[in-house]
Amino acid sequence: MTGYATHHFEAASRYTVSVGYDRRLYAYDLAGSAVHARMLARQGIIPQADADAIARGLEDVRREIEDGSFPWREEHEDLHMNIEARLRELIGEPAARLHTARSRNDQVATATRLYVRDAADRAVRSLRALQGALLALAEREQGAIMPGYTHLQRAQPVPFAHHLLAYFEMFDRDAARFADARKRVNVLPLGSGALAGVPYPIDREWAARELGFDALTANSMDAVSDRDYAVEYLAAAAAAMMHCSRLAEEIVLWSSQEFGFIQLGRQWVTGSSIMPQKRNPDFAEIARGKTGRVYGSLIGLLTTLKGLPLAYNRDLQEDKEGLFDAVDTLEATLEAMRGMLGGCAVNAERMREAAEDSALLATDLADYLVGKGAPFREAHAAVSALCEIAAERGVPLMALPLEEMRALRPEFDEDARRITAEASAAARDVPGGAAPVRVREALAQAKARLEAAGG
Amino acid sequence: MTGYATHHFEAASRYTVSVGYDRRLYAYDLAGSAVHARMLARQGIIPQADADAIARGLEDVRREIEDGSFPWREEHEDLHMNIEARLRELIGEPAARLHTARSRNDQVATATRLYVRDAADRAVRSLRALQGALLALAEREQGAIMPGYTHLQRAQPVPFAHHLLAYFEMFDRDAARFADARKRVNVLPLGSGALAGVPYPIDREWAARELGFDALTANSMDAVSDRDYAVEYLAAAAAAMMHCSRLAEEIVLWSSQEFGFIQLGRQWVTGSSIMPQKRNPDFAEIARGKTGRVYGSLIGLLTTLKGLPLAYNRDLQEDKEGLFDAVDTLEATLEAMRGMLGGCAVNAERMREAAEDSALLATDLADYLVGKGAPFREAHAAVSALCEIAAERGVPLMALPLEEMRALRPEFDEDARRITAEASAAARDVPGGAAPVRVREALAQAKARLEAAGG
Amino acid sequence: MTGYATHHFEAASRYTVSVGYDRRLYAYDLAGSAVHARMLARQGIIPQADADAIARGLEDVRREIEDGSFPWREEHEDLHMNIEARLRELIGEPAARLHTARSRNDQVATATRLYVRDAADRAVRSLRALQGALLALAEREQGAIMPGYTHLQRAQPVPFAHHLLAYFEMFDRDAARFADARKRVNVLPLGSGALAGVPYPIDREWAARELGFDALTANSMDAVSDRDYAVEYLAAAAAAMMHCSRLAEEIVLWSSQEFGFIQLGRQWVTGSSIMPQKRNPDFAEIARGKTGRVYGSLIGLLTTLKGLPLAYNRDLQEDKEGLFDAVDTLEATLEAMRGMLGGCAVNAERMREAAEDSALLATDLADYLVGKGAPFREAHAAVSALCEIAAERGVPLMALPLEEMRALRPEFDEDARRITAEASAAARDVPGGAAPVRVREALAQAKARLEAAGG
Amino acid sequence: MTGYATHHFEAASRYTVSVGYDRRLYAYDLAGSAVHARMLARQGIIPQADADAIARGLEDVRREIEDGSFPWREEHEDLHMNIEARLRELIGEPAARLHTARSRNDQVATATRLYVRDAADRAVRSLRALQGALLALAEREQGAIMPGYTHLQRAQPVPFAHHLLAYFEMFDRDAARFADARKRVNVLPLGSGALAGVPYPIDREWAARELGFDALTANSMDAVSDRDYAVEYLAAAAAAMMHCSRLAEEIVLWSSQEFGFIQLGRQWVTGSSIMPQKRNPDFAEIARGKTGRVYGSLIGLLTTLKGLPLAYNRDLQEDKEGLFDAVDTLEATLEAMRGMLGGCAVNAERMREAAEDSALLATDLADYLVGKGAPFREAHAAVSALCEIAAERGVPLMALPLEEMRALRPEFDEDARRITAEASAAARDVPGGAAPVRVREALAQAKARLEAAGG
Repeated sequence: MTGYATHHFEAASRYTVSVGYDRRLYAYDLAGSAVHARMLARQGIIPQADADAIARGLEDVRREIEDGSFPWREEHEDLHMNIEARLRELIGEPAARLHTARSRNDQVATATRLYVRDAADRAVRSLRALQGALLALAEREQGAIMPGYTHLQRAQPVPFAHHLLAYFEMFDRDAARFADARKRVNVLPLGSGALAGVPYPIDREWAARELGFDALTANSMDAVSDRDYAVEYLAAAAAAMMHCSRLAEEIVLWSSQEFGFIQLGRQWVTGSSIMPQKRNPDFAEIARGKTGRVYGSLIGLLTTLKGLPLAYNRDLQEDKEGLFDAVDTLEATLEAMRGMLGGCAVNAERMREAAEDSALLATDLADYLVGKGAPFREAHAAVSALCEIAAERGVPLMALPLEEMRALRPEFDEDARRITAEASAAARDVPGGAAPVRVREALAQAKARLEAAGG
Repeated sequence: MTGYATHHFEAASRYTVSVGYDRRLYAYDLAGSAVHARMLARQGIIPQADADAIARGLEDVRREIEDGSFPWREEHEDLHMNIEARLRELIGEPAARLHTARSRNDQVATATRLYVRDAADRAVRSLRALQGALLALAEREQGAIMPGYTHLQRAQPVPFAHHLLAYFEMFDRDAARFADARKRVNVLPLGSGALAGVPYPIDREWAARELGFDALTANSMDAVSDRDYAVEYLAAAAAAMMHCSRLAEEIVLWSSQEFGFIQLGRQWVTGSSIMPQKRNPDFAEIARGKTGRVYGSLIGLLTTLKGLPLAYNRDLQEDKEGLFDAVDTLEATLEAMRGMLGGCAVNAERMREAAEDSALLATDLADYLVGKGAPFREAHAAVSALCEIAAERGVPLMALPLEEMRALRPEFDEDARRITAEASAAARDVPGGAAPVRVREALAQAKARLEAAGG
Repeated sequence: MTGYATHHFEAASRYTVSVGYDRRLYAYDLAGSAVHARMLARQGIIPQADADAIARGLEDVRREIEDGSFPWREEHEDLHMNIEARLRELIGEPAARLHTARSRNDQVATATRLYVRDAADRAVRSLRALQGALLALAEREQGAIMPGYTHLQRAQPVPFAHHLLAYFEMFDRDAARFADARKRVNVLPLGSGALAGVPYPIDREWAARELGFDALTANSMDAVSDRDYAVEYLAAAAAAMMHCSRLAEEIVLWSSQEFGFIQLGRQWVTGSSIMPQKRNPDFAEIARGKTGRVYGSLIGLLTTLKGLPLAYNRDLQEDKEGLFDAVDTLEATLEAMRGMLGGCAVNAERMREAAEDSALLATDLADYLVGKGAPFREAHAAVSALCEIAAERGVPLMALPLEEMRALRPEFDEDARRITAEASAAARDVPGGAAPVRVREALAQAKARLEAAGG
Repeated sequence: MTGYATHHFEAASRYTVSVGYDRRLYAYDLAGSAVHARMLARQGIIPQADADAIARGLEDVRREIEDGSFPWREEHEDLHMNIEARLRELIGEPAARLHTARSRNDQVATATRLYVRDAADRAVRSLRALQGALLALAEREQGAIMPGYTHLQRAQPVPFAHHLLAYFEMFDRDAARFADARKRVNVLPLGSGALAGVPYPIDREWAARELGFDALTANSMDAVSDRDYAVEYLAAAAAAMMHCSRLAEEIVLWSSQEFGFIQLGRQWVTGSSIMPQKRNPDFAEIARGKTGRVYGSLIGLLTTLKGLPLAYNRDLQEDKEGLFDAVDTLEATLEAMRGMLGGCAVNAERMREAAEDSALLATDLADYLVGKGAPFREAHAAVSALCEIAAERGVPLMALPLEEMRALRPEFDEDARRITAEASAAARDVPGGAAPVRVREALAQAKARLEAAGG
């Protein structure tokens, strides 16, 4: 059992090396460097010819990275030093001028902010796509009625579409959070130097415009030690994963033999190595399970930042792996959730059967009494007693004889029989309510909102 | 050692009881109920006379709670049932009509959102006050220059005001996050019933306006099972506490004998039960320590929400204690941080001494060489070698003989001597940089921003 | 909506005050002080008469605390200063000698360790009681057979008792963790002074014996800054709560109309304020929800401890509230879980019906083929194909005609019909397996282990 | 900025694939399979010839993996299916018999437990090595005396060795926790099948002995859904990282210009890309920062496990990445801490200077008064007043004129002058105290304990 040994060898000597994971930032680092070099030349800080050589060199580096020929070297520790070292090999002395008027501290912060900006934008797009899938399924299955649950006990009948639209709202808030976070992400730190700014006549505004930043960081010490942008992405991702975990839980429940409400598409279930009959909702389970990872990355970064004095400390290098993992996890999960919804068959008959369980109409029966003048609390007590009687006798609530109902409250009459699952839902005719007419309205509004959001 | 026994007695029987902590919501619950009753009367759902009786009864309840005469009873489990039971005692039958067209699920969500809205507003105000204290101290100590640190190693000289303004920026982002969160908090769930809406012709828009809500929840199932508003408050609070922990760490460092940069006011230090000389920065340490609590409340609620199916589940009752604790902790911490800054004396002389450590001018020396035409990387290497020589010999960097410097790079000349701590800071003359002229500008802008924010 | 105002008033001035919560430690603090005073007299450090006065005074303090007459005062900040101040009032000058040869740092650590020791012991007892309840239910329902699930899909028939015994094992590991933690908790820090030990000829060994400690802390600086004992309790509590959350999830599932496997006792369900038919498993939901709190307390304390230099820092005061909350939460949860199991009725018929779903016998059918010589992977593929055919046709797997089965694998014969739920379980006749004979054995062993553990 | 695109492509299709990370378990999986095959043959379940073929095939697989020629394929999802598929290619039909009488569920649990067992053993060894480095440094620097700190304020003089030994104790508890965890890790789940055991006459005891397991899991459903062994490793790792973060914080402090107590070896500091003078303690900072990651992995797994019903759920696959990352992080961190201590130079003179700050003798001065009969509280008050006077006048405490001291307490006499840093430390002559004689004793005992532990 020595298979681990080579992996472990000289762990400490690679303790500070980040190129294994930060290479993911290469496109952002190259973009930042290209703009920095052009700015230096515009401001007369380096010769234009050097800036041109740097621009060409950076393009060569990009090509090498993208075709796999770039010579990554651990001795250069991180992405940024690898690129600079390679640039030197490719273009010689002008490469040494690229790091004028900047430090690795503001350089890394710039590349990471560009990365997070893209990730936040992608998150919004993926959330919109998932909202679209929820809408499509809700529209397709508009006729389906199911039990709404509280405490996982059947509560009141609701359209399946209404249930799905609850998730539409959750993911809508998630998208809004990523959009809000973007405002604080999209601020340029370049020009902050190691911690105090740089002693060169740089043009930060021009660089910001070229890189698409909305504003400049206002304090150089904050700029190099701030990681709020990563924390805020992670907090938004944690909430979005939490919502995914709830939907995943429902998919697992609904796919069970006991519920039997849906059947996932073939590519969204997996078999068992031992039990031939199994069609397991593994994608939903993994989505639910991966929620823990993203929570972990959030708390991990918050812990790392706790109690750090200004300005840059090397602890901040630990912002990346958890962030990258959360970005990957969120994106794959949103895509998986969308896929599962798309390929899912709904057993509307099974849903209806469950929704017609007449205990679900108890609230309506109490409301019926209120409609006849009873105070709510007393109506509730009477129907509660009827439920007990029905349960003891093993008969449906609505099958109790009228006289017996009247014995408890004289207001009961024949028209109480008219309460059905459909009627129950239809009665919830308030904004945001389960009445089919409201749900149709909500679907239309959701569609319009999604279109307005470009989703 | 039996002191614990009584506490433990019948723990399970009180497992579902929340009135011990949720009574904090009383003002919000009363406000929600008062508007609900008026709305029911306006819509003809209950008689106006009953609504009037309810309004008077709720006022009596408020008075009782505020003067301590309210009969809290554990057998009524939560705040809401306690109030309703008491209302019944006070006004009789009309009390039974208050719960018409609502459920505890939408009622609790309404009260909690009102609470979080207030808490978010208070957080913004406290953050503004803390920003004000940072500004006041920065203005008072504009002349002070100190070493800026990276890796807790002296890096480059910076004005003390510049260092303080870094925190101004952090708390500014925190305030923005609370303001963004407020948009998603301030949405009315009332009218969502238990999960599906209510079968009464209620007017949700009117109720929303009366309670100052910006919008209505769009889906009743989401409305009763959503706790994003608490999660988002907690995430913003966790970030703000993280910033406090960083400032607290610096206060602890600066108060140490080794740094000796500041002296906290007498009311912000405490003595030792055993060591007579001690003046410990306990407030700063507790602020740093309490960061963990708020992180814990955030992860606690995220964990509670993970994997819950729709709609309401009793797990959601567990949203409150961690939230309340985080609200208290954040507010007390922001107030303590503000107080500490206000009462703190600055030892500008000690700061200056440290800032004049000539190793801090190494970057400027390298920049000097760049100014004379050397590529940055080579200038850096030469000065690095000089630092080694100076350190070995135990002399200040700037005290090395010119010839020796020239031996490494011929560009060195007499004018290299003109580099001082002041000159070094002054050279960082870029937006956000440490140059005193920039810091003065930044102070003015910060003041204007704070005023614009009403702080 | 100003109800919050008074609460908030002067939050900072009470920032360092802990007497609101640390008074819970009073019995432990008194015990520590009583032994300390006796030790000081034995060693001739204080007069015997003073020690006697202190002993009587401490007894008076205890009485006052227990009958509610103790004058708690916030200006004395913590429990320890409150007691000392009161002691001074009660017995005069000798009280001032009690703090000889100790510091608040070692005093607090001693009281807290005594508290954690008791809490760990109580946790073990509560876990044993819960294991007992699992055993009692398993024995009572030995005949019940249910579907075992993987991925919440029906997998293979298992005795209900076998399922319950899985939790017996989990809680057994929990008890073992608390017992292991106790070894590191039960070490006396008294005598470590503020951080460096004390300059008096104290007898630490004697004090340790008197207080029931197994050993002395070996380093005074570690002794006053160590909080591992709280971390370890919290880690063990987090694992135990995780196990409770799993059992709670199953109780919620089993109580649903869809599963219908169990019915909780009347005192373990609650109704709805609006839906008269509801019998909600609130206790199980709260147990599941409270898991988040304990995780939060664990991560909170770990965060607080991160990066603290030696020795005592005031951050360490923040070890208590999360710990106390976790102790209360764990104990109430274990008691609630035990109560729920005790009062739960099992619907064995409903379980059996579900277990007889013949798809559950697919693995046995594959094993049947292996028994006739087929390699497992091929047998698995053949039965998997049969499952598809049965599902498409909507007939039970075992109702497929023999010829059709033979078409896929010639090994199939009449005796394949003999496979039933009972036979399937009975075939798992390995140590730890689901065979009823093994489960009976496991029950007997579990009972013996529990008795050996004194449970 | 499209560099991310390819990475993202078809994320969902690889959502369930784990072979990218679980291949790390290959040696453990091969060991488990080899023993399983031999057991099957011994029990007559498969032919001996097949078992022999399997054994040879597994050896070939190992060779291929170790020389890099193994054809890893994502379509086989995980390590286990990759190995089985390859085995089939290498040895044909007998490969299909290997999965007889086991399931992926018990197979994965077996391999992971073997992995965790090794990791726990390595953690103990690394902790012992780090304790050895602490001892070596403490012995080398026995003469050094430094200020002990509380609240980062100088408190009392302590030998540097005493300070280091505090960490010896912390890492000792960590090692004990890993050893305790190992008992619960080292239990064989193989034979539990998918969830219910297997219908073959297997010999679990024999397999356990062959694989070095101490015991068998007692319940098959628990065996496949238990991840306590990973949780417990992570909890122990989190505590150990917390201790590392504290030591790292001290290394950062001591390396600062303000403290100047130590100088790290050249390979344990790194320079700055911009500031030529910098010698940054990056390794210590990264160690401190990585603490967050391990906390995150712990909370991540706890979250994943929360609320999962029995038995196996695919969420459990998410146990691995966080665990592997924590194992790597802990091992590299322990190695880095050890390395830093080994290569660190101590500036004993600077330490002594700081320790001779006479305010540090205030406690001794109070104890001096107690020795002359004053009650401690009053002695403390008097010396506290003297400290104020000295601080106001800017003179050392011990330089105040004797008359002035006597004005406050008549007990002061000439011999008060004999109190020095050495005398102060020497007076703490209690077990675990800072007296040099006690520290020498503690060093000898620590050495003996470490040797007894095989470290």
